[in-house]
Amino acid sequence: MRKLFISALIIFWAVQLSNAQLIDEKKYNLMPWPNEITPGEGNFIIKKDFTVSILENGTQRLYQATTRFIRRLSGRSGVFFEEGFPNRKKDSSSFKIRIKREGKLKLLEDESYGITVHKNGIVLEAETDIGAIRGLETILQLLESNGDHFYIPSVTIVDSPRFPWRGLMIDVARHYQPVEVLKRNLDAMAAVKLNVFHWHLTDDQGFRVESKSHPKLHELGSDNQYYTHNQISEIVQYASDRGIRVIPEFDVPGHATAMLTAYPELGSKDTIYQIERYAGVFDPTLDPTNEKTYQVLEDLFSEMALLFPDKYFHIGGDENEGKHWNENTKIIEFKKKHGYKTNHDLQTYFNLRIQKILQKLGKKLVGWEEIMTPEMPTTAVIHSWRGVNEGLSPGASLIQAAKKGHHSILSTGYYIDRMNNVKDHYLVDPIPDPSNVTPQEQQLILGGEVTMWGELVTPLTLDSRIWPRTAAIAERFWSPRSVTDIAYMRKRLSVISFRLEELGITHLKNRDVILRNIANGFDIQALIELTKVCQPLKMYTRNKGGIEYKSYSPFTLFADACTTDAPDAYRFKNLVNAYVLDPKESKRTVIALLNSWVQNHGDLQSIKNRTPLTNDILKLSFALKEMSVFFLKMIKQEGVSKLDHATFIKLIEEAKQPHADVELVLNESFEKLFKHLKKNEL
Amino acid sequence: MRKLFISALIIFWAVQLSNAQLIDEKKYNLMPWPNEITPGEGNFIIKKDFTVSILENGTQRLYQATTRFIRRLSGRSGVFFEEGFPNRKKDSSSFKIRIKREGKLKLLEDESYGITVHKNGIVLEAETDIGAIRGLETILQLLESNGDHFYIPSVTIVDSPRFPWRGLMIDVARHYQPVEVLKRNLDAMAAVKLNVFHWHLTDDQGFRVESKSHPKLHELGSDNQYYTHNQISEIVQYASDRGIRVIPEFDVPGHATAMLTAYPELGSKDTIYQIERYAGVFDPTLDPTNEKTYQVLEDLFSEMALLFPDKYFHIGGDENEGKHWNENTKIIEFKKKHGYKTNHDLQTYFNLRIQKILQKLGKKLVGWEEIMTPEMPTTAVIHSWRGVNEGLSPGASLIQAAKKGHHSILSTGYYIDRMNNVKDHYLVDPIPDPSNVTPQEQQLILGGEVTMWGELVTPLTLDSRIWPRTAAIAERFWSPRSVTDIAYMRKRLSVISFRLEELGITHLKNRDVILRNIANGFDIQALIELTKVCQPLKMYTRNKGGIEYKSYSPFTLFADACTTDAPDAYRFKNLVNAYVLDPKESKRTVIALLNSWVQNHGDLQSIKNRTPLTNDILKLSFALKEMSVFFLKMIKQEGVSKLDHATFIKLIEEAKQPHADVELVLNESFEKLFKHLKKNEL
Repeated sequence: MRKLFISALIIFWAVQLSNAQLIDEKKYNLMPWPNEITPGEGNFIIKKDFTVSILENGTQRLYQATTRFIRRLSGRSGVFFEEGFPNRKKDSSSFKIRIKREGKLKLLEDESYGITVHKNGIVLEAETDIGAIRGLETILQLLESNGDHFYIPSVTIVDSPRFPWRGLMIDVARHYQPVEVLKRNLDAMAAVKLNVFHWHLTDDQGFRVESKSHPKLHELGSDNQYYTHNQISEIVQYASDRGIRVIPEFDVPGHATAMLTAYPELGSKDTIYQIERYAGVFDPTLDPTNEKTYQVLEDLFSEMALLFPDKYFHIGGDENEGKHWNENTKIIEFKKKHGYKTNHDLQTYFNLRIQKILQKLGKKLVGWEEIMTPEMPTTAVIHSWRGVNEGLSPGASLIQAAKKGHHSILSTGYYIDRMNNVKDHYLVDPIPDPSNVTPQEQQLILGGEVTMWGELVTPLTLDSRIWPRTAAIAERFWSPRSVTDIAYMRKRLSVISFRLEELGITHLKNRDVILRNIANGFDIQALIELTKVCQPLKMYTRNKGGIEYKSYSPFTLFADACTTDAPDAYRFKNLVNAYVLDPKESKRTVIALLNSWVQNHGDLQSIKNRTPLTNDILKLSFALKEMSVFFLKMIKQEGVSKLDHATFIKLIEEAKQPHADVELVLNESFEKLFKHLKKNEL
Repeated sequence: MRKLFISALIIFWAVQLSNAQLIDEKKYNLMPWPNEITPGEGNFIIKKDFTVSILENGTQRLYQATTRFIRRLSGRSGVFFEEGFPNRKKDSSSFKIRIKREGKLKLLEDESYGITVHKNGIVLEAETDIGAIRGLETILQLLESNGDHFYIPSVTIVDSPRFPWRGLMIDVARHYQPVEVLKRNLDAMAAVKLNVFHWHLTDDQGFRVESKSHPKLHELGSDNQYYTHNQISEIVQYASDRGIRVIPEFDVPGHATAMLTAYPELGSKDTIYQIERYAGVFDPTLDPTNEKTYQVLEDLFSEMALLFPDKYFHIGGDENEGKHWNENTKIIEFKKKHGYKTNHDLQTYFNLRIQKILQKLGKKLVGWEEIMTPEMPTTAVIHSWRGVNEGLSPGASLIQAAKKGHHSILSTGYYIDRMNNVKDHYLVDPIPDPSNVTPQEQQLILGGEVTMWGELVTPLTLDSRIWPRTAAIAERFWSPRSVTDIAYMRKRLSVISFRLEELGITHLKNRDVILRNIANGFDIQALIELTKVCQPLKMYTRNKGGIEYKSYSPFTLFADACTTDAPDAYRFKNLVNAYVLDPKESKRTVIALLNSWVQNHGDLQSIKNRTPLTNDILKLSFALKEMSVFFLKMIKQEGVSKLDHATFIKLIEEAKQPHADVELVLNESFEKLFKHLKKNEL
């Protein structure tokens, strides 16, 4: 994956700038940031005579990707191209693409590419069509405009990924996500050069695949929300067309309630199983001492092996607490007989049986970190996920796996369903401290996966949880380790974010859909303003204990319209920081913002009696208004009195109260501002 | 279709109001308006203990529809239901559904239903599950809220459709529409009780179906944008689940360029055929004298007959001008030999051959009105489409067909791609003047179809062309003839419109997506304001002669963000009307609106130099600003001078200029206002 194809790249420019300098200039809105980028002089202007040639070795995948590229370029720029499709003529086209061969959808395939843009044309070269597809996305990201034209600035780029496994996991078990939701997310993945779609297909809350060998699995385990074989093939093909591998996950032996709803006889407890409606870790577990368990899994995996061509196959293996094992005398007997001291030993036995089934099918096993025991062959890939929240050092298992000789991938730190701000994920590196790991061990660390767990997301909101933060994490997986400038990341991310709309991603537009529903058709501007300073409660506070929300609860609430990185909270933070340093410059803006929050609360009142949905929201707005009124007075009098201390303490306590599963994210700024004003005690 | 199932409906209320009175009260936001509605006393409050029972004879279709109903009710109200699925218990549930039998997807199936809501519960009864599904939509439309609760007002409804064929045609040939676009539109169709999806699958610009018998058709005729057999079955099933029939259309012998691209040997001219990229009526036509034509069509239709279970099969048959027939000596010979004087005679020969093929397959032929010749058996359904634009009296062929004994359906007047305002469609009745048609002939008029031609729509914009206007036309097809109050229709439509978002319809949210692209990521508020007084050029002015836009041209332009019924233009019109009657009341509002347009032009300038896409838009905005400045002065001086006449003439000419394929729709109001002010010549 670190190879680079630069054969025919011609460097036109004398002046070369280092990456660091370019980052200082904040010149390009590229994400992930490329390996090498060299600005040239002049611009390639997008005009209606724009044409694209795919030279030797063009593939169907590349032809289609290039056609989509042309549509997107035309859609963005509004230019009416005379030619709507790529051609195979050699010389006349303004944009020439050249590849050496068709890429394979496999680990370590070459994804490198090189781009030269000069004012008369563009050349894109790559070893494989997959590399070329990565390059097409870079060219689209380079597009700029002024009052006269859209253009691509002259530039030379030489690029290849840092890690070969750059994934996004989507959990479709807790909430089903229709085919089109996955397709648009595959498009977005390709836009930021992710290359693995990890499809979490089964869990306690649903078994989401049609099984022809054991149809009860989807008939009884899915509430009729599952993917047919045809749909799976459609998704796999769609991913392949974008150079994305698809890794299915069938989570066993725990997280198996939906399977056991269909086949209770495979369970470790003699009970009635029902599809789980709550979130959490549950007891239903496959019986590892029952030969029928392996029979069914072998049938199922044989069937699935044909549907999912990728070499890797994820078996989950996480969070089995073995409660039902401890309650089953037959299983206790079995452990005793085989000398297994712990449930972990027994699970290892199970895993090794599964491993053999997969081996027969020509598949490599991937599992969450719990599968890593001394007996597990090093051909198994270890998926590291636990961290501080589980009382462990982040990524510990990743390093441990590499030291044992396993390939490994990291998800600790990339749990975007926790609703942390983007910077919390962006700085997590798959190799936290390279000095801890030998270069050989580093080679075993394949990359990482963003994990989108599905307890609190529906098709309406999924995109706004994944995007845009996943683009920043994708940069971590692709770009040089040194690319870590948070401010520049934020600037680029804001552009990448709205561009994702062209692929159908709904993260921006569905906010207003939710708010229109809440406002019952009335004006939503005041609600919009409030979303800009609010964030949904961070996981897993929103659904404490997993029992506030069922899988069929409404996810059309104010919390679902809010996202991380609340923009006005960020703006206010910067303003307060400036104010604290020197009030003169920012005073007017601070006052204007505080006034706007007072005004906004007034506006919100107008929908108050039309729907009960705004009652809790008004509490947030009221707290914000009260705090704003307080600070307007304090700023006016340029200091605080003793009496004001008590008032502030009361107000900040109110402002810290979550309502409607949402919290105001201004409190740190309020405290900072108060501390500053306090210095000047009246 | 006019039968009514009211067996077990119990009337609880003494007070009965007529429909006319209710319409006067403008009390319910129902659309289509039901046959009979009687308000009761009190409200049924939606609480978390809400449960639904499906009593005897429940079907899988009804179970699934009811589950969707529960999700939508929860999503709208934010109420966390304890039970997420319907049950089959008899007595305890708050909402009881009872049907007599499974409905069949066929013409004239019973769709009637009855609803009683009282404060302790709801009962929905219907002959068929399809009728019950219609009733579920009515209940959702009844939902209201105050500051405390969501509730359904006590009411009795007895309802059934006026016409049995209530269709929406979507042309997926000019622009391909992915499966999910069709699915969400099927959901929206069901929400307004439409029951026929007419799928225009082939045309000069594309052949959109996988053919296993003649794979070249989709391989060479679709640019790789076609529906697989599996996808077609998926759509047919999805429609069936919502009580919607699917009628495929294979347009022959004209509109056949895509077919001929695959099979030039079936063409009437020896030439190279290529998928058409422009809009219009083209010459390529199947050769009706070639036996292979019938062979291929028989293979194809036999294959398609299995995929589309409906009894009716649309063969197009429109707009064949026979130019290539006239140029082909073999065809001229054939006509002579058979004594066919006109190309129309020859096409009749062709149609009758096709009719026989379909008859063998157990299908009834439907065709556009051109197929109606004396020889055509009356089993063929005539689809009336031509009108004033074609120099004919609207619906003439519909009446003519009925008089000849054909079943017929009307599309004249329902061409929503022409971008007329909703009222222009709403008042078109399938039976324009009942006194012209005997009751027996009236029975032959099956209903109508909204036609959404695809020249200028992509998945991004399709919904905003179909919705919300199609909801008003759906009312025309379902409700009593007497329901024609335009103001009340508008009021109800505004609610129905935003509620469609819950089904994924993108008509509201995609406006901002387009504007964000135009604004290149900058604030779009000023662009939004401008869309509120602009409309895209009415068809077919936007794409004059069919040669401005190719099928791959950008449809991401300002015109694509604008829709019909521009809201602020409508508001301004009402304001001017009021002002003309009595300036006192409305003067302040008129001035405020004019001022806002002056201000808005200023705001728009800020993105001017960032993108060329706003250059043309600024011309519209400038004309509006100039006119606003003019009227602000006139209103202030309360009259006009001689000099102002000349200025106004110049300004109104400017304001009438279209830019960016869009026009300001304020000019009538400006003229009216000027005329009024002119009375007071200074």
